[in-house]
Amino acid sequence: MKVNGTPTRTVWMEGGIVKMINQPLLPHRFEISNLNNYQETAVAIKTMVVRGAGAIGATAGFAMAQAAISAPDSSFHAAMSAAANTVRETRPTAQNLFYAINTVLRAIEGQGSDIKKCRAAAIDAAFSIADDDAECCRKIGESGAGLIEHGAKISTHCNAGWLAFVDWGSAISPIYAAARQGKKPFVWVDETRPRSQGARLTAWELAQEGIDHAIIVDNATGHYMQHGEIDMVIVGSDRIAANGDVANKIGTYSSAVVAKANDIPFYVAAPTTTIDKDCPSGAEIPIEERSQDEVLFTWGWSDSGQFIKVRTAPAQSPARNPAFDVTPANLVAGIITEKGIISATPEGIASVVR
Amino acid sequence: MKVNGTPTRTVWMEGGIVKMINQPLLPHRFEISNLNNYQETAVAIKTMVVRGAGAIGATAGFAMAQAAISAPDSSFHAAMSAAANTVRETRPTAQNLFYAINTVLRAIEGQGSDIKKCRAAAIDAAFSIADDDAECCRKIGESGAGLIEHGAKISTHCNAGWLAFVDWGSAISPIYAAARQGKKPFVWVDETRPRSQGARLTAWELAQEGIDHAIIVDNATGHYMQHGEIDMVIVGSDRIAANGDVANKIGTYSSAVVAKANDIPFYVAAPTTTIDKDCPSGAEIPIEERSQDEVLFTWGWSDSGQFIKVRTAPAQSPARNPAFDVTPANLVAGIITEKGIISATPEGIASVVR
Repeated sequence: MKVNGTPTRTVWMEGGIVKMINQPLLPHRFEISNLNNYQETAVAIKTMVVRGAGAIGATAGFAMAQAAISAPDSSFHAAMSAAANTVRETRPTAQNLFYAINTVLRAIEGQGSDIKKCRAAAIDAAFSIADDDAECCRKIGESGAGLIEHGAKISTHCNAGWLAFVDWGSAISPIYAAARQGKKPFVWVDETRPRSQGARLTAWELAQEGIDHAIIVDNATGHYMQHGEIDMVIVGSDRIAANGDVANKIGTYSSAVVAKANDIPFYVAAPTTTIDKDCPSGAEIPIEERSQDEVLFTWGWSDSGQFIKVRTAPAQSPARNPAFDVTPANLVAGIITEKGIISATPEGIASVVR
Repeated sequence: MKVNGTPTRTVWMEGGIVKMINQPLLPHRFEISNLNNYQETAVAIKTMVVRGAGAIGATAGFAMAQAAISAPDSSFHAAMSAAANTVRETRPTAQNLFYAINTVLRAIEGQGSDIKKCRAAAIDAAFSIADDDAECCRKIGESGAGLIEHGAKISTHCNAGWLAFVDWGSAISPIYAAARQGKKPFVWVDETRPRSQGARLTAWELAQEGIDHAIIVDNATGHYMQHGEIDMVIVGSDRIAANGDVANKIGTYSSAVVAKANDIPFYVAAPTTTIDKDCPSGAEIPIEERSQDEVLFTWGWSDSGQFIKVRTAPAQSPARNPAFDVTPANLVAGIITEKGIISATPEGIASVVR
């Protein structure tokens, strides 16, 4: 996607240096971080300079490629194993991270004892992971764009745009595709408290790509649904169960319920790798509870450009902070994947994952 | 209600001085503002040192009493008329303000040309307005407490507590009454973006009164409804139409829809003065749109105790900011008034207003 008019990816590798958009600085400042070796890249994953399932996977792949470049011939395999451990520990719950590490390790195994070939295979595998992610997201856009009418007003929640992947994104990819087809979509961007990924990241992406949008507080989405100002909803997902139940950022469930009450189709867009066929239903998806401080405070930029937190709540009051919720499959109009649009049913899920 | 263990009202008058809780400082600092004459009191209304329908009305009454105290005998009626104009212009859309001004002026008219009697009547009328508001809210609590089971978990939105009135409040009054009956209610406090009245004011009230509660982002309410963690919802109202439709803070509608989907009773608590019998339905209630900045920025206290704003959104992105929404009468389980609990129907409304 474009940044200041120039095509850009979330993360890439050039001459052995991993480059990525420094996401915590967005939308206040656009800056590329240069990471010279796998250790630096691992720190960038851990400190969330990069975030989002697809982007983390690609970054982990590049970190392993950097490890392969620097690993000495004499102890190549031991060095790669040590690097894998380092990268694995950065975000211990990110599935795509393990997938990427294992993919690079398997590519190396296939080359036997020829270290030069091992190195080349690791680098190739890393570039493929990133390219596959971008291509998968592009296909999600292609699948979903057909659902979007000319001038459609679309609601989205959190950030499931290209910043969460390598390029294109999941929920926003169909919108980008529709915009490039001249359909002039308009996007209602939920602020997405407590971490404000909608206001900070999705709005920034859309502004960069020149797509009409407005930020609203999460409280206002229902009002615009009630008044016919929202034609459809597209959100991403963190995990989809085998019965079509969808886990996503807290607030997604309410949006789906109010959409249903107003006969507005509610779509989920995600790569099929998001589907967990071993998870029978949403009831089995554990809901992470994060720090109270995310609710009691808000982070942002002061007039002088400092990134600071301000407290809104009383010191005596506790908060609760569930990070995700589960939208039952019966509220989901369809799941937009790289393999086409499927129904949120056991049959739909089974048609794309075995 | 109590502040630091001491019974306190939102606004009162002592020796001709109007005293009020300085609400913009809450919850960071508890401070009483002293206003020496009606001009100072008018400024306090205008700058929102006091806010909330009932509290504004009582303050306007006291401002008129201050005007009566200082008005010279020789030009008493002209001075009162000038004071009325000044107070009227502070918050030109606040119904209770006009009601209070007119009530004091009518009390004066009843005394003919005896200025001493006029003055006494103005002061009496002002105290009555405040006491009537407190008594009305106390009765709302009495009406509503019967709906609250022992240990009930109750969701509320925005601030419809005693800070919005003179004492007790509307939506929170039944909770205070139930707590004093030993029912140990628990309150889920919606943060209520964009102005965070829930996190700032409702949570502070509940902490002061020693009532168990937790602040949640508005996105999390649906999740707790879905998981059986919310037994009932009670919210306030800015205006109730003749058919039972309810205008209240943005986000109320979504809360009502998700409550209905989970079979959770959704109550509105309000004095009958909130009912506008000339407004046939919610469709006729205009929705105020406030400044974009409330969405693009968040206000709060820095570590050093400064009240500042921080920006979360990109400079290029616009926002939309509707302040209220309308909840259709069919989502409302009942309206808790000082005259008892009525149904949100034309018949229910007609039973308490003529």
